[in-house]
Amino acid sequence: MDGFALHPQLAKDTVLIGHLAGSQLLLMNDARFPWLILVPAHGDLQELHELAEASFTEVTQGIKQISEKLQRLTDAPKMNIAALGNQVPQLHIHIIARRHDDPAWPGPVWGVGDPLPYSEDEQKVLIETLQEQLLD
Amino acid sequence: MDGFALHPQLAKDTVLIGHLAGSQLLLMNDARFPWLILVPAHGDLQELHELAEASFTEVTQGIKQISEKLQRLTDAPKMNIAALGNQVPQLHIHIIARRHDDPAWPGPVWGVGDPLPYSEDEQKVLIETLQEQLLD
Repeated sequence: MDGFALHPQLAKDTVLIGHLAGSQLLLMNDARFPWLILVPAHGDLQELHELAEASFTEVTQGIKQISEKLQRLTDAPKMNIAALGNQVPQLHIHIIARRHDDPAWPGPVWGVGDPLPYSEDEQKVLIETLQEQLLD
Repeated sequence: MDGFALHPQLAKDTVLIGHLAGSQLLLMNDARFPWLILVPAHGDLQELHELAEASFTEVTQGIKQISEKLQRLTDAPKMNIAALGNQVPQLHIHIIARRHDDPAWPGPVWGVGDPLPYSEDEQKVLIETLQEQLLD
């Protein structure tokens, strides 16, 4: 991860949960959605397909693991997985647990309303839970 | 692919390009965006992480291959890759080439305006090109 620096917009919008699959796992600071972001620390990439073969396997396995565990943890009826990057070019993958009563359902979450930041206590407890449940 | 049937909404909105990675590769019938959809024909799945290990590898390699080739073919500055499925539950992966002057940029494409169907001739030529360029 030499020379890797998280994009300032991601640094501003998220909190670090930990590391897996050669990536940073981040929590979006938006209590409306259980919304994680995986940022491969594999150099200055923009597209999922630009990951070299071994890294691509590692990162996609990380996505699989996080998606499965986050769905189990949240009991969400649907997961949304996406690599968009139209506004923040640094390669990052959204892993979002969706509920039928969340404020964007059934549309996508991007650009819908304003983020609702977690309280300090909420965030602390959630980060600990996510570290325990997702990073084994 | 025994017993696999494409969801009626996907059948209505798309045209078959061909098969790869144990999946159907479809063209969204919307000339506003070069927009492909990969539908793994691996049973009745809703989530990417539900694919068994070998199928998961096959499908993610298919995504990598299609994304790389579609970006080269369209010379698009950005690719969008997503498995959402909030409205059509059958597992399907969007692979969309984005341009800075497309009608949804820099937002996501879903739910933006109305689809602009290809003319019969446009569609025929495009399908042939995609078959040649993507399915090698």
